[in-house]
Amino acid sequence: MVNIGLLGCGTIGSGVVELLKKESCQKRQLRIERILVRNLNKHYDKPYQHMLTDRFEDILDGDIDIVVEVMGGIDPAYFYVKQSLLQGRHVVTANKDLIARHGGELQKLARENGVRLLFEASVGGGIPIIKPLSESLAANSITEIRGIVNGTTNFILSRMYNSGKSYQSALAEAQAFGFAEADPRADVEGYDAARKLAILSSIAFQSSIDYEYIHREGIEDISTDDISLAKYLGYTIKLLAVSRKTDDGIMARVSPVMLETGDPLAQVADAYNAIIIKGDAVGDVLFFGQGAGKLPTASAVLGDIIDIVKHNLGQYRAEDLLSQDLPEARMDIENCRTNFLIRLKPSNRLETMSEISKSFQRFEFIFPDRIRLQGAVDPDQVIFTVWGVSEIDIKQKIDALRKSESVHSILRVIRIEGGEINDV
Amino acid sequence: MVNIGLLGCGTIGSGVVELLKKESCQKRQLRIERILVRNLNKHYDKPYQHMLTDRFEDILDGDIDIVVEVMGGIDPAYFYVKQSLLQGRHVVTANKDLIARHGGELQKLARENGVRLLFEASVGGGIPIIKPLSESLAANSITEIRGIVNGTTNFILSRMYNSGKSYQSALAEAQAFGFAEADPRADVEGYDAARKLAILSSIAFQSSIDYEYIHREGIEDISTDDISLAKYLGYTIKLLAVSRKTDDGIMARVSPVMLETGDPLAQVADAYNAIIIKGDAVGDVLFFGQGAGKLPTASAVLGDIIDIVKHNLGQYRAEDLLSQDLPEARMDIENCRTNFLIRLKPSNRLETMSEISKSFQRFEFIFPDRIRLQGAVDPDQVIFTVWGVSEIDIKQKIDALRKSESVHSILRVIRIEGGEINDV
Repeated sequence: MVNIGLLGCGTIGSGVVELLKKESCQKRQLRIERILVRNLNKHYDKPYQHMLTDRFEDILDGDIDIVVEVMGGIDPAYFYVKQSLLQGRHVVTANKDLIARHGGELQKLARENGVRLLFEASVGGGIPIIKPLSESLAANSITEIRGIVNGTTNFILSRMYNSGKSYQSALAEAQAFGFAEADPRADVEGYDAARKLAILSSIAFQSSIDYEYIHREGIEDISTDDISLAKYLGYTIKLLAVSRKTDDGIMARVSPVMLETGDPLAQVADAYNAIIIKGDAVGDVLFFGQGAGKLPTASAVLGDIIDIVKHNLGQYRAEDLLSQDLPEARMDIENCRTNFLIRLKPSNRLETMSEISKSFQRFEFIFPDRIRLQGAVDPDQVIFTVWGVSEIDIKQKIDALRKSESVHSILRVIRIEGGEINDV
Repeated sequence: MVNIGLLGCGTIGSGVVELLKKESCQKRQLRIERILVRNLNKHYDKPYQHMLTDRFEDILDGDIDIVVEVMGGIDPAYFYVKQSLLQGRHVVTANKDLIARHGGELQKLARENGVRLLFEASVGGGIPIIKPLSESLAANSITEIRGIVNGTTNFILSRMYNSGKSYQSALAEAQAFGFAEADPRADVEGYDAARKLAILSSIAFQSSIDYEYIHREGIEDISTDDISLAKYLGYTIKLLAVSRKTDDGIMARVSPVMLETGDPLAQVADAYNAIIIKGDAVGDVLFFGQGAGKLPTASAVLGDIIDIVKHNLGQYRAEDLLSQDLPEARMDIENCRTNFLIRLKPSNRLETMSEISKSFQRFEFIFPDRIRLQGAVDPDQVIFTVWGVSEIDIKQKIDALRKSESVHSILRVIRIEGGEINDV
């Protein structure tokens, strides 16, 4: 028998309980010994009621082989996981916040205590990505990661794109479906995606990447104008997580981008996730599936549990996937060249266009056909694209335009992916 | 040091040699000790010349830890792999013919001799699929596999679809690019896809599946008419490998299908592969990448080698992926319900249509708009779709139509995927 101690019994936790009843888990003799919950009363009528405790000590006092942490958040998960490792328990976690912030330290602790720390469910929900990346593709130098790793924002952007909804109304719908939290900031401001990108990039580039230093822009102010214009120009808008190994170091960013509709990631709709890994030998490999949800996430948690069991609860590990001792990655994107679409409201149209012409080398004014655009976009705008410009350069030039007397206001600066120059 | 004996040094073999020079492999102390080739003279000027031998005994006499078989074909690969396992050598192979035919037997032999037999590269080239399927998704009951697993036929069909080429001309182009063999039958007749489907299905459904019993149709007689009509109706044509667990057993087939253009597999172009695994917990997971080629396939071979090395050349194995002892799968598809498109040349149009109306319950005549179809399809045809009909039923009714005096000839019977009823 392999005894599991479950920390947390919310959505993912109850999914783990459900999957453990399956024949494929039963035949591996996996069973839950204890479940730690905050509030016993909330679970009083559940079939697993006799396993419940609200004292963490009961988990470590018991005959537990594997601690499964599915509470989320840093506090108290960090303390519990640390204690579990220190007391020689294997840990499986779905907690991206925890792994993005303390993964290196915790993995070191696991090694020192002769146990394993696995976290497949922390990125991409049910999609196998950590294991394929770190094991199947081990012979590759990974040069790039591009992904849609947040289902909430992808659902919102899909609804805006397909149904013409406003951001607020699409967000409300996502909340009604349970795809978005009451406080949606971690998702819509890109923090969640940045954490997942940090985890994947740390493994892929064998670097120590702090998600707080990843350049991050959210989707909160994407407007129906942005969507209409993207559609008109043959793009969709996605919150893209991108990281790349360059001669200057590792570049990473999370931001909404205008993505060519032919791009494989442009097809990823609703709450689905997809991640493209580029390896020097294998080329592009794409992984697609449900990036969240009770059973998909529990499927990944169980995959990790079974991995530990297959290794006879031993300390099999070739190398740490995450480590504090790895070189810290340079994270600024200032010198990266990218393509942009810019919309602004002029106070003097001709002067604005003249200033733009003087500022940028490779640019193109866009004059949308008002009829085909069905009047969706305010006509009193100047819209242009800029190609192959560095991030620092665009920042300075946009600042100059913002201060210019001929410009009333900058309405949108958004990256274009899939164009000619496509650095991070 | 981990010593590798390489059997074969063609495309994949030279890819393995190339990848082993990389830093990620050097730091794992992997090195090639011996390379077995058929004709020493063909390799006399290569940098690896000093490792060459044309005697298999030199491989097993040497201090070899892992034998890597990349010769392809059954004979002599089967004998070599068997001898290697018997003499306690781990084996990594990219050989789908060998694994599809002898995988169960060889895996048993590996177990008995305390070594491992890995074969990630045998399906999907560089795409991680065997390991994610058998490890990451281990908690799932797999209910369905759908995939484009043969790059050659996908290249040919893509060229026919996108450039209006004939089958013969697209095949010639595939041969010129090196995507198709001089004798293309294994690919175009669906044998290669059937072997890969047998390997995946055996693992997914824990059954013993003989590829020779998989229902198989090739793409040799797909015509420009078929392509034009598919395009017109909003489909693409793909060689699809499908297997499914049903109450009656396991159903599997390889055949060209009309695939709705909105299907994720419809987007898979050129020589790429993609496989969708449906698990009861995880839902649909899609894996996409280069299904063949020197470095992608070598990437998968190296992934297996590194896996063996990470386990300290030990016999880590939880359960055999393939086994002769597993229950044999029922492979006939007679009772499966599917949708079909049928084109025939009538000798008496009205009588033919009357016979069809009497024969089928749920059907629909299609009268393509000749102008939109640009005259591509011979107008003297009767075209109709049939929905939710069993394979045995369609076979009998088509036979009856073929014998009918009002029918001149049956031009095409092709399955439709993505429609209403979608059994295998």
